[in-house]
Amino acid sequence: MQGEKVANSFRLNKVGVTGVVKPVQVRRPNRSVTLTTTLDVFVDLPPDQKGSHLSRNLEAINEVVDRSVRDPVASLEELTDTIAVSLLKRHDYATTSEVWASAAYFLERTSPSGRTSLEPYRLVARANARRGEREVERSIGVEVIGMTACPCAMETVRDDVLKEHPEMAKWPEGFPIITHNQRNRTTVILQEPSNHEVEADELIDIVEDSLSAPTFGLLKRPDEGRLVEMAHRNPKFVEDVVRDVLERLLKRYPKMPDGTWVRVKSEAEESIHKHNALAERSTTFGELRST
Amino acid sequence: MQGEKVANSFRLNKVGVTGVVKPVQVRRPNRSVTLTTTLDVFVDLPPDQKGSHLSRNLEAINEVVDRSVRDPVASLEELTDTIAVSLLKRHDYATTSEVWASAAYFLERTSPSGRTSLEPYRLVARANARRGEREVERSIGVEVIGMTACPCAMETVRDDVLKEHPEMAKWPEGFPIITHNQRNRTTVILQEPSNHEVEADELIDIVEDSLSAPTFGLLKRPDEGRLVEMAHRNPKFVEDVVRDVLERLLKRYPKMPDGTWVRVKSEAEESIHKHNALAERSTTFGELRST
Amino acid sequence: MQGEKVANSFRLNKVGVTGVVKPVQVRRPNRSVTLTTTLDVFVDLPPDQKGSHLSRNLEAINEVVDRSVRDPVASLEELTDTIAVSLLKRHDYATTSEVWASAAYFLERTSPSGRTSLEPYRLVARANARRGEREVERSIGVEVIGMTACPCAMETVRDDVLKEHPEMAKWPEGFPIITHNQRNRTTVILQEPSNHEVEADELIDIVEDSLSAPTFGLLKRPDEGRLVEMAHRNPKFVEDVVRDVLERLLKRYPKMPDGTWVRVKSEAEESIHKHNALAERSTTFGELRST
Amino acid sequence: MQGEKVANSFRLNKVGVTGVVKPVQVRRPNRSVTLTTTLDVFVDLPPDQKGSHLSRNLEAINEVVDRSVRDPVASLEELTDTIAVSLLKRHDYATTSEVWASAAYFLERTSPSGRTSLEPYRLVARANARRGEREVERSIGVEVIGMTACPCAMETVRDDVLKEHPEMAKWPEGFPIITHNQRNRTTVILQEPSNHEVEADELIDIVEDSLSAPTFGLLKRPDEGRLVEMAHRNPKFVEDVVRDVLERLLKRYPKMPDGTWVRVKSEAEESIHKHNALAERSTTFGELRST
Repeated sequence: MQGEKVANSFRLNKVGVTGVVKPVQVRRPNRSVTLTTTLDVFVDLPPDQKGSHLSRNLEAINEVVDRSVRDPVASLEELTDTIAVSLLKRHDYATTSEVWASAAYFLERTSPSGRTSLEPYRLVARANARRGEREVERSIGVEVIGMTACPCAMETVRDDVLKEHPEMAKWPEGFPIITHNQRNRTTVILQEPSNHEVEADELIDIVEDSLSAPTFGLLKRPDEGRLVEMAHRNPKFVEDVVRDVLERLLKRYPKMPDGTWVRVKSEAEESIHKHNALAERSTTFGELRST
Repeated sequence: MQGEKVANSFRLNKVGVTGVVKPVQVRRPNRSVTLTTTLDVFVDLPPDQKGSHLSRNLEAINEVVDRSVRDPVASLEELTDTIAVSLLKRHDYATTSEVWASAAYFLERTSPSGRTSLEPYRLVARANARRGEREVERSIGVEVIGMTACPCAMETVRDDVLKEHPEMAKWPEGFPIITHNQRNRTTVILQEPSNHEVEADELIDIVEDSLSAPTFGLLKRPDEGRLVEMAHRNPKFVEDVVRDVLERLLKRYPKMPDGTWVRVKSEAEESIHKHNALAERSTTFGELRST
Repeated sequence: MQGEKVANSFRLNKVGVTGVVKPVQVRRPNRSVTLTTTLDVFVDLPPDQKGSHLSRNLEAINEVVDRSVRDPVASLEELTDTIAVSLLKRHDYATTSEVWASAAYFLERTSPSGRTSLEPYRLVARANARRGEREVERSIGVEVIGMTACPCAMETVRDDVLKEHPEMAKWPEGFPIITHNQRNRTTVILQEPSNHEVEADELIDIVEDSLSAPTFGLLKRPDEGRLVEMAHRNPKFVEDVVRDVLERLLKRYPKMPDGTWVRVKSEAEESIHKHNALAERSTTFGELRST
Repeated sequence: MQGEKVANSFRLNKVGVTGVVKPVQVRRPNRSVTLTTTLDVFVDLPPDQKGSHLSRNLEAINEVVDRSVRDPVASLEELTDTIAVSLLKRHDYATTSEVWASAAYFLERTSPSGRTSLEPYRLVARANARRGEREVERSIGVEVIGMTACPCAMETVRDDVLKEHPEMAKWPEGFPIITHNQRNRTTVILQEPSNHEVEADELIDIVEDSLSAPTFGLLKRPDEGRLVEMAHRNPKFVEDVVRDVLERLLKRYPKMPDGTWVRVKSEAEESIHKHNALAERSTTFGELRST
């Protein structure tokens, strides 16, 4: 019935399924991990066809997921790429396909005092295929939770406190000043070049290094103190976080083609407000270089 | 400190606040209502400035919200428009501003047997202002929950059931056939023309009429039966819902400029699957007309 | 059909509807406000009846909501009470009814430097009616977002920093020390005594006063500094917040009957961790007094 | 600092951390799986101690999670049990501990026409330990998404349709009648007896068998028809689902001690309403048997 011809209707950009959850075996450096992955997959629909065969989307997903049990996929991007290609084969009326995947992901991290622990992150991948084009456009992204300390409140506080403590003629050099700090959620997603040189673990490092401080599940007393000091010696607006991620990306991937797009977003769950602060840049590597 | 000059950094597309919740007085036909409104507001940031003055965003919001207590705003679009203009005045370094607002909204509806009741919907509005341009680009949108019954399962079922019931040699004309049906969430958002002729209540009507059936909080027994029959006599894929909304929009707004963009999305929370089905079209009125 | 007798089945504690959204007119001191209210309503079901007549739940809700347009309800607790009584009238087979209501709510607050602004909170109310009992058990609750600064990290930091700054032989009295601080979400809900003397606005005050500092939508530079200092001069664990709310409740309501139950919960969205910290006490006023 | 003595404060029922996410290796029949598990862990706090040492909670979690990499835990209940015991060892001032764990989980299912596919479910486990008691109280639970078709609308529809089709003197025996059907989310959680005989996979079977029909990710055309027919031949209210789960539990676990508690909840995301229908029973096996 979906295959029925209809006269004179509208083309649809996207028809598909959302929220399909599957366990996927993925190769990471030195091991294989199971990622509980949420998938959204779509194809377009020509104006003269009544509907899209949605069960074919599940066949495309299942085939790849089943195969990953025996032969883990190289990455979440690889997974979306394979499904996107399979979708165009299965939906012969479609000219484009789009696949999104996201999953919780864990890396071992070491706290200031040397304690190791698994920290949770989020991976995101997207693939867009177009009939007749050899290459699938692949994107790779991560979400990192960390800490930002506000640089602005520090200034006001210093002046206030010095007024109350005239015995301290001036603020001791390098002496940390109180400010508000908060949970920050920063995401980066970028188009992967054809040599697939971008690794999710690297993106996570880049984002984590761009925050005031990383966060850890387990912090014993001395760890906690050092992390707080670290954040206060490195205060950042959400604007600073986005710009620092962009700068690190430019440095890390000097050969990235100019046309490669990238989006960086940093959201601070403000401790002094009930709302959040957000900064975002969506651009290409070429534009970034020409700034 | 945000105003500090920085050398050679990156422009940011959006810096602002998200999740600001305010009660807003809005004029609707024949009355004024209080909408519990969630706002996200942003401006851009030039490459040579350290940060955006986020408190100015709240000043812009508060001013308009406070004024609405005495003098209700004409619509949620009007609210976002006014804030977008105010943002450019307050952030003299910014060249663009963007404001999103969304709120639960209620309309009186009459069930098949004539019972009236308030049904919940969701309004969305967006405004984009650009320094030096006289007109703000405004968008207006709605989210409507209704019911879709699947046309495809009906066919298979008819064949199956006729095999078991040869006494019904052919299906009585208009005899309703079982199928799966489900909660459907359809959203439409479009650019408002400068005469502001688009009304949220009309968009809600257009979407609700494009589903297999509307839904109601209160349905007594006969109502429930009639609604189920109505949905089964009007089975729809998510693809059909999107196309029918597009067609109704073209008919209702014949003078809409060709450049006006519109996005329609329909998501069915499938009863036979744990995942959802989704169809979407993002386009302009001009493209729709040329199909 | 729901009314059918069934042999030998199980009693059900709760049968009803959840997520019913309605605009409700509520009287507050000196004004009337519209609250976008989410309702869950239930009755029990005897073992010999097939089903509950769910449409009667909506009739009970609609009646009260419609009446509130002309005659605002005294409070959200009053609303749940009236619906709970109406449910027992409409479901003659039921022996108990339960109604929950929650809504965003706004109060004007003044920042340290005297700026006024509407701040969002959340109201919660519950009513439990029992057939044959004259009085309905009513509960009233609030959710308040504020700020907590960690007292523990301050200690470690002071020792660390003094080691690096021997010139400050001892810490100047009252000199603020850095620590991590975060968004905190504290809820209190308690049984209302029959004189209905508990006011939601008072509960919000009690909770807000028990945090390290309140939070505000709009803070200009000096405000921000003062709020940060306030929080750092008043550091609190989630444990402290819960205990301080309990103590304030005992003082504010000295005549509260011993049997009155209360639950206080404080959750800190930790800035140094990706997880939250939580403290909770569920008890009666009698138990609290005997400690 | 948390260990400081405080005079005359209040005992707290629960102090701990929520939302800790970890990958856990769990043994299932014939294999080991990685579950992305969310943990909430708490201990109580005596009235004379300032705070709880929250980092010890993470030590308890990490120890068990790390060990599971080499030696998978027997079940999610076992995981919560081990952590609950470890918490009491690490917090010597505490007298009770509570641990919650939940995770997405997958089982291979076969569609009506024989297609196999992984379907997602949700596992829940809880453990409560009490100092001085040898045994930890363990609970095991599952969440299953399936389909319910409303029995009530069928009756009204039959009468309506027969009126319109007088040529059909009566409804053909066993001929399926249209009704509304919807996504249903049913959860069961029960105390595990000391012989640990309850298996999550069995609970999932019990719930899935109690719905009008199971749901599947992948359904080809004939599958879809059969599933729709199956649901319409087996219409169920949420009340029926809860009662059928209870009955199956009694039959499956005849030796379950009378004191064992159980809670069953079924929520239908109604297709004809914007709100949900819910039925719930919280009880003990003894009470169920005596009904």
